[in-house]
Amino acid sequence: MFQQITILGPGLLGASLAMAVKERGLAPRVVTWSRRPESRAKCLNQSWCDTVFDSPEEAVIGSDLVVLCTPVQTIVPLLVQIRSGLAADALVTDVGSTKSLICREALSVLEGHSASFLGAHPMAGSEQAGMEHAQSDLFENAACILTPLDDAAAEVIAKLSAFWDAIGMTVSTVSPEKHDEIVAHVSHLPHLLASTLCGYLAAQDGTWRNLAGDGLRDTTRIASGDPQLWKQILEQNSDEVVRAIEGFELQLHHLKTALLNQDSLGVIAQLERGKTYRDQL
Amino acid sequence: MFQQITILGPGLLGASLAMAVKERGLAPRVVTWSRRPESRAKCLNQSWCDTVFDSPEEAVIGSDLVVLCTPVQTIVPLLVQIRSGLAADALVTDVGSTKSLICREALSVLEGHSASFLGAHPMAGSEQAGMEHAQSDLFENAACILTPLDDAAAEVIAKLSAFWDAIGMTVSTVSPEKHDEIVAHVSHLPHLLASTLCGYLAAQDGTWRNLAGDGLRDTTRIASGDPQLWKQILEQNSDEVVRAIEGFELQLHHLKTALLNQDSLGVIAQLERGKTYRDQL
Repeated sequence: MFQQITILGPGLLGASLAMAVKERGLAPRVVTWSRRPESRAKCLNQSWCDTVFDSPEEAVIGSDLVVLCTPVQTIVPLLVQIRSGLAADALVTDVGSTKSLICREALSVLEGHSASFLGAHPMAGSEQAGMEHAQSDLFENAACILTPLDDAAAEVIAKLSAFWDAIGMTVSTVSPEKHDEIVAHVSHLPHLLASTLCGYLAAQDGTWRNLAGDGLRDTTRIASGDPQLWKQILEQNSDEVVRAIEGFELQLHHLKTALLNQDSLGVIAQLERGKTYRDQL
Repeated sequence: MFQQITILGPGLLGASLAMAVKERGLAPRVVTWSRRPESRAKCLNQSWCDTVFDSPEEAVIGSDLVVLCTPVQTIVPLLVQIRSGLAADALVTDVGSTKSLICREALSVLEGHSASFLGAHPMAGSEQAGMEHAQSDLFENAACILTPLDDAAAEVIAKLSAFWDAIGMTVSTVSPEKHDEIVAHVSHLPHLLASTLCGYLAAQDGTWRNLAGDGLRDTTRIASGDPQLWKQILEQNSDEVVRAIEGFELQLHHLKTALLNQDSLGVIAQLERGKTYRDQL
């Protein structure tokens, strides 16, 4: 499918992707670069890694696919750094959880270069981070959103779509802005609610946690995610995230009002609506 | 431990309890009653059930432990109904998720009767309901809260504590009011947040659900719980639930404000606090 794939930033997502590429035979060579020397040393011993480079600009030379797998705030700076090393026909993509800022800025970074950038968001991962938790089936059966800008070339979209499809994902295509609106609701809002619930409970009596059941544990699992990564995601998508919070606040206000007014029908209608949605998920 | 245990309302909790009693040999006889004739017919074929009665007042005759396992709003009416059938030394308990109302009213129902009532809340279960999902290890290693009133006899507390301990639970004792405050935070609030999130997402574009990942699924699993049961729980504990909602609303407001003010340190401090709490759960 590709001759050489460069994975920049082989953490949980990057290393899992490299494993999947190797396992599915999607490229004869997978090369990598990581910011920290310790991580580069670790890559040397991995079966999914053919060569490790000391700089990202060296690592992209000769690759027809480059995947930026670093935290969202460093994706564009990294693209600036690798620009000069990119092959003329290189396709550059990323795995960032936000898309508007990244895709708009990537377009201007690559202006005048024949390489293409097409944003991607494979919606897989876990609250755990790092190469040591990587697994080749991380992406299997999950959704991957591609976010082409209006003037994206159809063959570039088709090529990248075929790649994520070959990784085992269900690929869809929306604009970067629509992507950010959607994930603000189905991903960023759930994350910050779990985190806020934990932060609120942390301020209560410490012994109460001994009485927590599986319900609380499941509901808050994602609150264990890396705060540095999530801070970047929430900040890059703050407009849509704030809109989602405000929509949620209104809904919660309705439920509170129904409870205060002893409006049984109102309470049950809201619980029914929630159950119907969840049962279809 | 007991000679005969009556389980009234053998749904998920009641039938699981009966199984555990049999498996652990805590009583030679387990008898039951269920409101619906179909359920009574089903009980006849269960290895955990020695006899099924057509009325609750018959089912409690001769039992030294009676466990009320019906939805919270029917626990006290059921106690009124069985009062005349209770043995003089009977110990009556329940598995309801709220305790203040139930324990206060149970006290007045049993006034002048030598049987005792002591409220219990085994914090186990799942979003699934019904006898068909029962399992003998449902309660294992989970918390059970006993909620004696001030004048409860020490030997009654010791006896019921030993029972739930023998079922495999970690037993603690608090007042009914403190119980309701705690579960409003660690159980009822998580439930209604999950349900409200689902209700809010149900009002958005229906195709977005295809892009949901495991994070959303885990966060909202409990929203599949039975709306009728949860309506009763939220209503019986509405004062504490509303207080918990308001505390949460304030915390969410802080996070929203930090995002709006581009206060990175504020955002990360809140995410860190949530992660620290969750990692210790």
